[in-house]
Amino acid sequence: MTLKGNDHMSVHKIPLSKVGEFGLIDQISRLIKINKSQVIKGIGDDAAVVKIPRGDKYFLITTDMLAEGVHFTKAMGAKRIGRKALACSISDIAAMGGMPKAAVVSLAVSPRLSVDCVKDLYQGMQTLAGQFQVSIVGGDTIAYKEVIINVALLGEVEKKNFVLRSGARKGDRVFVTGFLGRSLQTGKHLSFIPRIEEARFLVKNFKPTAMIDISDGLAGDLAHIMDSSRTGAHLYAELIPRAPGASVQDALYDGEDFELLFTLSESNAYRLARLKNLPFRFICIGEIVDKKNGIKLIDRWGKTSLLKTKSFTHF
Amino acid sequence: MTLKGNDHMSVHKIPLSKVGEFGLIDQISRLIKINKSQVIKGIGDDAAVVKIPRGDKYFLITTDMLAEGVHFTKAMGAKRIGRKALACSISDIAAMGGMPKAAVVSLAVSPRLSVDCVKDLYQGMQTLAGQFQVSIVGGDTIAYKEVIINVALLGEVEKKNFVLRSGARKGDRVFVTGFLGRSLQTGKHLSFIPRIEEARFLVKNFKPTAMIDISDGLAGDLAHIMDSSRTGAHLYAELIPRAPGASVQDALYDGEDFELLFTLSESNAYRLARLKNLPFRFICIGEIVDKKNGIKLIDRWGKTSLLKTKSFTHF
Repeated sequence: MTLKGNDHMSVHKIPLSKVGEFGLIDQISRLIKINKSQVIKGIGDDAAVVKIPRGDKYFLITTDMLAEGVHFTKAMGAKRIGRKALACSISDIAAMGGMPKAAVVSLAVSPRLSVDCVKDLYQGMQTLAGQFQVSIVGGDTIAYKEVIINVALLGEVEKKNFVLRSGARKGDRVFVTGFLGRSLQTGKHLSFIPRIEEARFLVKNFKPTAMIDISDGLAGDLAHIMDSSRTGAHLYAELIPRAPGASVQDALYDGEDFELLFTLSESNAYRLARLKNLPFRFICIGEIVDKKNGIKLIDRWGKTSLLKTKSFTHF
Repeated sequence: MTLKGNDHMSVHKIPLSKVGEFGLIDQISRLIKINKSQVIKGIGDDAAVVKIPRGDKYFLITTDMLAEGVHFTKAMGAKRIGRKALACSISDIAAMGGMPKAAVVSLAVSPRLSVDCVKDLYQGMQTLAGQFQVSIVGGDTIAYKEVIINVALLGEVEKKNFVLRSGARKGDRVFVTGFLGRSLQTGKHLSFIPRIEEARFLVKNFKPTAMIDISDGLAGDLAHIMDSSRTGAHLYAELIPRAPGASVQDALYDGEDFELLFTLSESNAYRLARLKNLPFRFICIGEIVDKKNGIKLIDRWGKTSLLKTKSFTHF
């Protein structure tokens, strides 16, 4: 059902105004697959009804809003935009050490947009949802000038496994899960795989002391951990894994990489370093120091400079 | 901290661009009160961490997006707009028979908007949240041309008490909880009280067979119940409670009343009718019939006409 030649957003074909809001909801419902062992009632009532997990768990809730012209343009293609909207939220659940479960999607779209385009948006989400066992259980659709997508995602995590930003301690080592920089230029911001598997491996085996997903840029998100944990950090410029063509500056300040940034105690860091043949990348890039030492970058010649932590900010 | 003379949205005073995204989040966090017995971690991490309720319950999830120019104008005032955004979601939880618990809020705002204005938006939400024991546990804030608010709300309901749209049966009576029509003109769409108390009273004592909140208009929302339940209905025009100045047509087709529309078995309907001194209004307006009879309106002279059920639709 995608448009020929590409899946870009389009005002061709049947416009939404022809099928109406409820016609659209009906078509969307048909392409959504829910996990029936967890979902009592999905799309089509005032609220979704979801089973509460047994055992010693907490719920995680996150919400992300993506706007046309800010986070995406129509030219990126409806499927990839839908995928990104859900992927950002799954990444937040990963950063807490949890598993994503059920999503509700709010969508603002122009009545001139084609039905196929909106179905592609949902198809992009559904494909990723299927890969991560997420059920899309409900939503809201409104008419508006531009496309705005909000995904609110419910996840769960064992009480003993959840990770906040606030637990980093002096002597901990700082890690990232992959290459950083130039995400917007390379298209990674549309195709990244949320680091759920890495996060689950870590919380089950190594109990990170703090964790965050890198959405604002390494420097800025490190500063969030430092603020919450009341510590400083030393980063080694040469250790920061850079995406092809990315400078150290790009790796530090570009946003939307959606890798995990986490800290491990020294002993756990050594234990992790000894593991062989891991299917994941865990790259040590620095260590946690006293807050009074600030956040510093150490270059290949050992020269230390204060790291500017001003990251991407929306205002 | 409101603007003098009114609490209208404004670009006076300190613009958001001065305090930045994280300065704003910090200020918002301070005016939010969370229920610490339920919330492990609220605003300020990648996701909120919430305790899972004990007992025989389900979770309810709903999401609502409100856009400037569609659902509100700045002239309505930031506090009232914030209040409405949360109230719509609480109303959805009421329509399921549940209790609202934790909300995440996504907000698109112009950097030119004042900090006080955004704080007023949140204050409007927080005041209502406090009245309904809802914790605002997280959010997302982005810069955009206009104001867009998305509230995703988590609620809970006892397994035996949740009510879908699909349970209405022939012979059931149809009820509403209050006066209908002219909500936009009277301002009710900004000040309505979500019918949580009524819903909880009903599910504990009378087990409605179907329930919905009237957001699209009585005729349209009745049609939603009819579609889901595969039944028809007869409504008595004279029985429909009308807001001051509202015609029967207004009561049938105006949206945003946020009263509950529900059905009870005949015996429960009689039982409810016999109760005296109730603090709530439950007004019987018709009954459920076979699907083949359609949805009909019966006027004061007993004349029957097919009810047009086309309600408010966004496209």
